[in-house]
Amino acid sequence: MGDPLGVGPETLVKALADRDLRSSARFVIHGQAGVMHEAAESADIEPFWWQAPAGSSAAEAPLAHSVLLIDYDEFSGLASMASRRSALHARPTRLGGAASHRFVAEAIIDCRRPEGDPRKTSAIVTGPISKEAWAKAGRKRYAGHTDLLQAAFGARRTVMLFESPALRVALATHHIPLMDLRNDLTIGRVFDPIDLGADACREMGVASPRIGVCGMNPHAGEEGLLGDEESRLITPAIRLARQAGIDAHGPFPADTLFRRAAEGEFHLVVAIYHDQGLIPIKLLARDKAVNVTLGLPIVRTSPAHGTAFDIAGDNRANPESMQRALALAVRLAANRLLESTQATQAAS
Amino acid sequence: MGDPLGVGPETLVKALADRDLRSSARFVIHGQAGVMHEAAESADIEPFWWQAPAGSSAAEAPLAHSVLLIDYDEFSGLASMASRRSALHARPTRLGGAASHRFVAEAIIDCRRPEGDPRKTSAIVTGPISKEAWAKAGRKRYAGHTDLLQAAFGARRTVMLFESPALRVALATHHIPLMDLRNDLTIGRVFDPIDLGADACREMGVASPRIGVCGMNPHAGEEGLLGDEESRLITPAIRLARQAGIDAHGPFPADTLFRRAAEGEFHLVVAIYHDQGLIPIKLLARDKAVNVTLGLPIVRTSPAHGTAFDIAGDNRANPESMQRALALAVRLAANRLLESTQATQAAS
Repeated sequence: MGDPLGVGPETLVKALADRDLRSSARFVIHGQAGVMHEAAESADIEPFWWQAPAGSSAAEAPLAHSVLLIDYDEFSGLASMASRRSALHARPTRLGGAASHRFVAEAIIDCRRPEGDPRKTSAIVTGPISKEAWAKAGRKRYAGHTDLLQAAFGARRTVMLFESPALRVALATHHIPLMDLRNDLTIGRVFDPIDLGADACREMGVASPRIGVCGMNPHAGEEGLLGDEESRLITPAIRLARQAGIDAHGPFPADTLFRRAAEGEFHLVVAIYHDQGLIPIKLLARDKAVNVTLGLPIVRTSPAHGTAFDIAGDNRANPESMQRALALAVRLAANRLLESTQATQAAS
Repeated sequence: MGDPLGVGPETLVKALADRDLRSSARFVIHGQAGVMHEAAESADIEPFWWQAPAGSSAAEAPLAHSVLLIDYDEFSGLASMASRRSALHARPTRLGGAASHRFVAEAIIDCRRPEGDPRKTSAIVTGPISKEAWAKAGRKRYAGHTDLLQAAFGARRTVMLFESPALRVALATHHIPLMDLRNDLTIGRVFDPIDLGADACREMGVASPRIGVCGMNPHAGEEGLLGDEESRLITPAIRLARQAGIDAHGPFPADTLFRRAAEGEFHLVVAIYHDQGLIPIKLLARDKAVNVTLGLPIVRTSPAHGTAFDIAGDNRANPESMQRALALAVRLAANRLLESTQATQAAS
C-alpha cells in the first residue's frame, strides 16, 4: 500500500478496479482497511477485495479471491487521518512511516515462504513511501524500499530501471550527490546496468536487446577534451559487456542518445547518474513510467512517482503508473515461473 | 556560412528561400559562391542572392539587395570538395576550418563598423563549424564561435540560451568536464543566466518572465542529504536575483522542472550544466531549437545543431533551426534598434 496518507491506496484501488488486471494473478495487499474503503468510496468504486485481519487464520488460508487485503488493525488511526487529509495537508507522519515500513516487511516475509506454501508470493509491488516518515518512525536504517529489499535478500548488486512505452532507462548510480560520481563511479557500476538491463529486456520480451550507454561529460567527453571518465570507466565497461555477448554501444552524447532510443535505435539506455536518466523518462513517459529493481531474487516493481501528499485524498491521482507496475510484475513473475518450470522439466 | 563542407550552406539556402524571411531584413552571407550554388542546385532553389567578390567595391557598396553573398575566392577549392562530399564522407579539413574562421571574423568586422556605415550589421548568425577543422587550420586560440565572439567584443560574461516553442533553457556552465563543476560553479555563474535570461525573455516578448532554476543534485539535494551545492550556491544566486526584482524560483528537482516549464509554469529554465539543459531541449524542441548568446553587445544566434558532416551534400538537412535562428536574430536586432531609437528620442 505504501504510505496510507499518500496516493498509494487511491492508485491501488483505481488500478485493481480493472478486472483484466485482477484476473491475471492473485494479489495480496498489506495495508489498512479503513483507508482502502475511503479511497474506494471517493473514487466511486465497489470494493473488490476480500479482507482478513493480520495474524488471523483467514490471513493464512489459501487464497480464494483474486485480491486479499491483510488489514493491520494497529494502524486504524490512519483511516481518520486519511479522511481529513485535504483539510490537514497530508505530510510525513510517524504513524504513516511505521505502517508503510511494516507493510513492506510483511510482503518480504510472504516472498520468502517456502515453495508449496499457499501464501507464497513471487513479486512485490511497492506503493510510494516517505523517507521522512520512515525516519520519524525510527526506521532510519534504510533510505527506502530498494535499500531495504537489497539488504533483506542479501543481493550483491541492484540496479534501478525505468520502463515506459517510449523509453527504457537503467541507472549506473542513483541517490548520491552529483560530485560523488568522482569516487563512486567504477567500471563495475557501469557494467551492472548493462548486464542486468540486457537480462531484463529479454524478460520483457526483447529477444536481442540493443543497449546504448550515455557518456558522463558534455558531448561524451569530446575525445577526452571534456573529461576522461568515458575512456577510463565507461568504454571499458562497454567492452566487458560486449565480451560477455551483450549488444552494447557507446558512450554517446546523452543529449542525442535518448531521442535515438525513443525512435527505436536502442531498447535500453544506460544513464550514468540520476538526473541524466530521470529527465528524459519524466518528459517522455509522463505518468506511464514504472520503476523495476534488477538484481533481486524476486520481482520488484513500483510506480515511478512519490507519495504526492499535496493531492492525496483529492481523488485526482493518476493510477496509470501503479497499474503498469502491477501488470509488469505479473508478466515478469509469470516469465520466471515458466522458465523455472522448463528448467525443472529439462532436468527430469 | 559556417564550415562550407557541413550542412551550413544547404540550411542557409533553404532557410532564405523563404521570401517572408528575406523581406524582414537585409542579410550578408560571408561564404563561398560555388558551394552556395551547389546547395541551391541540389535543393532545386533558384539563387536569390546578389554576389560580390570580397574586397571589391561592390562588396562595400550600400546594400541594394535583401541578400548579399560576399564570395571569398581563396576558398574556391572547397566548391569541388563540396560537390564530391557524399562519396568522400566529408570531415573536418584544414581549408574548411580556415574558411569558416575567416567568415566569422569578417562578420565581426561588419558588426563593428561605425553607425551610418551602409554596411554596418547588428546581428551575427553563425552556421555550424568544426572545432577540429579550426584546430587543423591552426585556429586553436578559441574553442568555438562563442569564445571567439566573447573575446572579440570584450564581453565580461556570456550565457548560452536555447530557445524553442516548447521550452527555453539557459546554462550556468557548458563545455566543461562534469566533475569540474566542483570548482567552476559559483554563485555568479548561477546568477548570470537568471539575470541575462530574464532580459532575453523580455526581448523575446515575455513581459514578466518567470524563471525556474534546477538543482544540481538528484531531487535538488533533498534538503542537503544529497549534496550542498543547492544551499551554498544556487539558493543564494536565486535570492540575489529576487533582490534584483527578477521573478526567479527554485532550486527544483530537474527531472520534474522541465515538464512544468513545458506546460507553461515557467518562461525559462536555468540548468546548471550542459546535459541537464540539452537533454530536454533536444527531446522537446527536436529541430526547432535556436542557440542565443547573451551578454554580447550585438545579437548572436545560431542553429542548435552541428556540421552533420555525415549527411552534408545529401540535400536532406532540415533547415528549421537555421530559419528560426535567422528570424530570431532579426526580431532581437529590431527590438534593440527600436529601444535605442526610443532612448535617443527621449533624451532629445
